[in-house]
Amino acid sequence: MKKLINAVEDVVTEQLEGMVAAHPEYVKVNFEPKYVYRADAPVADKVAIVSGGGSGHEPMHGGFVGLGMLDGACPGEVFTSPTPDQMYECAKVVDGGAGVLFIVKNYTGDVLNFEMAAEMAYAEGIKVQSILIDDDAAVKDSLYTAGRRGVGTTVLAEKIVGAAAEAGYSLEQCADLCRKVNQYGRSMGMALTSCIVPAAGKPTFDLGDDEMEIGIGIHGEPGRKRFKMKTADEITETMALAIIEDGAYTRTVREWDNEKGEWYDLELIDDPFQPGDQVIAFVNSMGGTPVSELYAVYRKLNELCEDKGLTIVRNLIGPYITSLEMQGFSITLLKADDEILKFWDAPVNTPGLRWGV
Amino acid sequence: MKKLINAVEDVVTEQLEGMVAAHPEYVKVNFEPKYVYRADAPVADKVAIVSGGGSGHEPMHGGFVGLGMLDGACPGEVFTSPTPDQMYECAKVVDGGAGVLFIVKNYTGDVLNFEMAAEMAYAEGIKVQSILIDDDAAVKDSLYTAGRRGVGTTVLAEKIVGAAAEAGYSLEQCADLCRKVNQYGRSMGMALTSCIVPAAGKPTFDLGDDEMEIGIGIHGEPGRKRFKMKTADEITETMALAIIEDGAYTRTVREWDNEKGEWYDLELIDDPFQPGDQVIAFVNSMGGTPVSELYAVYRKLNELCEDKGLTIVRNLIGPYITSLEMQGFSITLLKADDEILKFWDAPVNTPGLRWGV
Repeated sequence: MKKLINAVEDVVTEQLEGMVAAHPEYVKVNFEPKYVYRADAPVADKVAIVSGGGSGHEPMHGGFVGLGMLDGACPGEVFTSPTPDQMYECAKVVDGGAGVLFIVKNYTGDVLNFEMAAEMAYAEGIKVQSILIDDDAAVKDSLYTAGRRGVGTTVLAEKIVGAAAEAGYSLEQCADLCRKVNQYGRSMGMALTSCIVPAAGKPTFDLGDDEMEIGIGIHGEPGRKRFKMKTADEITETMALAIIEDGAYTRTVREWDNEKGEWYDLELIDDPFQPGDQVIAFVNSMGGTPVSELYAVYRKLNELCEDKGLTIVRNLIGPYITSLEMQGFSITLLKADDEILKFWDAPVNTPGLRWGV
Repeated sequence: MKKLINAVEDVVTEQLEGMVAAHPEYVKVNFEPKYVYRADAPVADKVAIVSGGGSGHEPMHGGFVGLGMLDGACPGEVFTSPTPDQMYECAKVVDGGAGVLFIVKNYTGDVLNFEMAAEMAYAEGIKVQSILIDDDAAVKDSLYTAGRRGVGTTVLAEKIVGAAAEAGYSLEQCADLCRKVNQYGRSMGMALTSCIVPAAGKPTFDLGDDEMEIGIGIHGEPGRKRFKMKTADEITETMALAIIEDGAYTRTVREWDNEKGEWYDLELIDDPFQPGDQVIAFVNSMGGTPVSELYAVYRKLNELCEDKGLTIVRNLIGPYITSLEMQGFSITLLKADDEILKFWDAPVNTPGLRWGV
């Protein structure tokens, strides 16, 4: 295993120490329990946006803490859910009196732990809401997930809802916007190589020297299909068409009722892309693929969107939701209305994403 | 070879097509001969900053074209110098009447071709100056280089001198500042893996499963020494101390005399780091190393700088001058005075680096 690490058990702690040493103007870090939070938290009367999940996907989530994005992020060990006490303690520190929105990627551990944290925060008198991201069009269920996995749309949701919170949206308005962003987003990933989890010390899965896998998850969960290597154009076409032509998706999510203090079920149906739509296109490196190759993907993606009547009006290209050093990429398309574009364009000032300031 | 490419001969062209499709607000691309230039070029009465070199180091240089950084960038084939006609045609398009500054990494092909381009531009009535970057403290001479190679300081020079040009510096002032930045900067790189040049189809060099190489160049040129894998702290210490304790470096560079229309030799001696200095620290991924590992490096680098009496006052952490998908990283330290900090902090709006706008 070739990695820039010291002892395996210190990997997450030391990376957080490096991040806070590099970016004290943006973030503070609490180590027991672990969470990253805005240096100026709590921001009075602003809804606080909190996310989290296993480490190994950097800059997501800790690198998105700062003005116009997250107020807090809870990192688990590599590819391991954070615990409810991390989320609960983080929520208490960042709540500015307007409530806390949890943005939760759909992995069973994350979902259960954020639910428990929401109940703990509510019991402490903090208004909470928890919105699930389940945008991965690749597979119906997965290794760690009932339903679709939460992937690239998470980054876009954190940016857009973070800006809305900054602009004074209420907790309910933030939740509505976050739910909409999730319903408007679709993603698919692929791997050229496996990553190596430090504690495991060997590749998560085996992939032949001439093989790749399409539809893979951000922890190396199995995807749709393995192929012999294809061209960038062929790979991009397979993934982009699967996203654009995905069709209606129906599922039931649980959200929190702050009046009654209980969870309720909500059925969501979405079918985002129609000819004439505007979209934000996000081409993401899994960590080991350089930006030059992402541009080759974007070139074809842009052509395919045009062919299908979609206009890419904004884009994000680079390593933002990674799988350690895995080579590969993902595509996320997000239908973009005026509200979404306004908050996409708003200033953001975090270690991982910065513009307008 | 697992890469997101189509035909090997189209790699650079298609990546440029993707970049201009993604970022038409920043850049335009000319394909015959190839150069990337600011969408609003020429900017009247502003010194134009032009760089270039082999492709495979993205986002450098094309990704740094835009407000506050480069006016033009000339990409060669992967790891191959661009030609004088690319540089000359680019200079003609971006010159706004105040002259053109070439920022040239010290590789023999780049140096010779930029010299020829400078003479061609001068003959056309364009004021030119050409400043060499030779900041790699690893080795004295190298595979493609007489003297020290030009590496990470190039990115910092493009940012700082680009901002100075935007602020109205004359060609001579830009050249003086660029020369100073080069003299104040020192870098060293290391590789965990080789990269694969598309046209070669196999690794540039062999490195055992438990080996790494310190001092390597951005094309995989041999470095100082191979080691069995060490910890992030040990690797960082070896490299940081080599940079900080590098000592005086003397060499002769050639610069252009716009009065006489001829080259002259200039002896440069520099010895940048003394206790009490402020520095900009740049921790760069070679392309395949994720940002999480860079933070582990930064953590130790920050400690070592403190120990040596250097204060890191700004930092840049991420993949900015890469070697295709090579795993590894480089450290650049740049002594930072008020002039350098002012232009570091100034707005920049490019595909690869963006803040303040």
